[in-house]
Amino acid sequence: MTQTMVLGIDIGGTNTKYGLVDNNGQIHIQGSISTIGHAGPGAFVTALHAEIQKVAGGIKITGIGVGAPNGNINTGEIIFAPNMPWRGIIPLAKLLETAFGVPTILTNDANAAAIGEMKFGAAKGIKDFILVTLGTGVGSGFVANGQLIYGHDGFAGELGHMIAIRNGRICGCGRKGCLEAYTSATGIVKTAHEWLEAGKESTLSKSATITSEGIYKAAVAGDAMAIDLLGYTGSILGMTLADAVAVTSPEAIIFFGGLAQAGDLLLGHVKNHLEANLLNIYQNKIKILPSALPGSDSAILGAAALVNN
Amino acid sequence: MTQTMVLGIDIGGTNTKYGLVDNNGQIHIQGSISTIGHAGPGAFVTALHAEIQKVAGGIKITGIGVGAPNGNINTGEIIFAPNMPWRGIIPLAKLLETAFGVPTILTNDANAAAIGEMKFGAAKGIKDFILVTLGTGVGSGFVANGQLIYGHDGFAGELGHMIAIRNGRICGCGRKGCLEAYTSATGIVKTAHEWLEAGKESTLSKSATITSEGIYKAAVAGDAMAIDLLGYTGSILGMTLADAVAVTSPEAIIFFGGLAQAGDLLLGHVKNHLEANLLNIYQNKIKILPSALPGSDSAILGAAALVNN
Repeated sequence: MTQTMVLGIDIGGTNTKYGLVDNNGQIHIQGSISTIGHAGPGAFVTALHAEIQKVAGGIKITGIGVGAPNGNINTGEIIFAPNMPWRGIIPLAKLLETAFGVPTILTNDANAAAIGEMKFGAAKGIKDFILVTLGTGVGSGFVANGQLIYGHDGFAGELGHMIAIRNGRICGCGRKGCLEAYTSATGIVKTAHEWLEAGKESTLSKSATITSEGIYKAAVAGDAMAIDLLGYTGSILGMTLADAVAVTSPEAIIFFGGLAQAGDLLLGHVKNHLEANLLNIYQNKIKILPSALPGSDSAILGAAALVNN
Repeated sequence: MTQTMVLGIDIGGTNTKYGLVDNNGQIHIQGSISTIGHAGPGAFVTALHAEIQKVAGGIKITGIGVGAPNGNINTGEIIFAPNMPWRGIIPLAKLLETAFGVPTILTNDANAAAIGEMKFGAAKGIKDFILVTLGTGVGSGFVANGQLIYGHDGFAGELGHMIAIRNGRICGCGRKGCLEAYTSATGIVKTAHEWLEAGKESTLSKSATITSEGIYKAAVAGDAMAIDLLGYTGSILGMTLADAVAVTSPEAIIFFGGLAQAGDLLLGHVKNHLEANLLNIYQNKIKILPSALPGSDSAILGAAALVNN
């Protein structure tokens, strides 16, 4: 008997991860391709289709669920995503439907991860939470009353574009001081360069390529500047999250993505600065949790869960 | 036949308004008593009960719905409300139940107003909106997917305690730079005093009592400083709302309370500064609307709607 599965796709600014997911939320086959280096979104979809045909074997794909930066569930488009290689409005769900010949639902990558965590991960049984993705950008999914907040036009949940520092660092979106400009992988690398330029000592070298992963590794190895970088990044994140808490009063804030793996070196500072900035009625109540699913699984599973298998 | 109605109560930092509301959301009898000047919350409830007995005539009250600052729907308490005459935790629903002998549901005043606007006012048919109350404090009710966001513990929707200006003016909550410290009735009066102290010319006198209503009237009469005061207040409100929009992406923002009546002199600036600070995907989509119900009616009707009549 042919197995039928849903293809869950997590599109990031750098890499695109996928998984073939069964009815029970089990990922059977997974892998990734680069998001960058294609001639355009059409070429990207062609490459992804070729990859899936290669790995799927006898599995029949019945539908596709996609999480993507600035993905809009109402239109199936990626719209003006500042951290993506493609500009403007990309009708990605339509491109995938044409290539694969199956129904495709696309949403914001962080919304997909929130659904994944709610169904299978750290947010199981939690009706009010914020899912924060720390990747090339900073994304978020807000869940209230057990439902994802999509907002009037499908674009709710842009924590990364709340203003952390007014008139601060320029953001990829063109405005100033967005949380994402400081606490994304690119943001923390930018801070590292600024600090090195200012003469701070570190095992991180300004001549070599600095990555957020490299900063985390240096911090684990005891590099004082790297430790301070994670602390500074966590403080801005905690401070800004205090404003988001004033809107939805969550039971938990769940962190997902590369930087989230820095654990207490980052999340400890997030918690301290969140608490220090909270209105008294919210204090000492909110759980700070890392994703309970490995790698990109929450986004892949959440995206797949958008589709009826 | 005895008429049965629900008592809807809107408790403000200064005045408490009430209405006897029928099954169809019609207010039959309404009035107000002072919130301040009582020996404590018990004496306040006694005074309110005496007042209602005086006005209710033959109407049988079957339940009470209350909107109050920092009101918590889960516990029926008013909890650490910075603009109320009573400190600490006030079990107001219980006090009212004891005095009136009927079931009482209490929620945040702005949440009550949001329900009122959704059922009977400017938000009819709108599933995603923010209700902002501009009174002694700044309150808010956030509605997403047609449901009020109460959050994990019933305290969601404290727009007034999002940080407008980091390390700014001290707020009644003890923190610095809250939106409420600038854009509440007390906030705008404080700005007026600061500007007069700094030597600005105005028909408003620093020796006389300045009120937000007086500022509005002076602005309508052409006083340049009063006009600028409303503009400045609107700019801070618009700027901060841009961050709230990034969370819930509303179709509309509805303004309720004394200052909201300043119309374009205030809301025009709110709209301009909101748009100037919005992430591009939210621009030119959000309606800025005043409450569509007279006086306190949306809070009274919304509070009454909490109770099954």
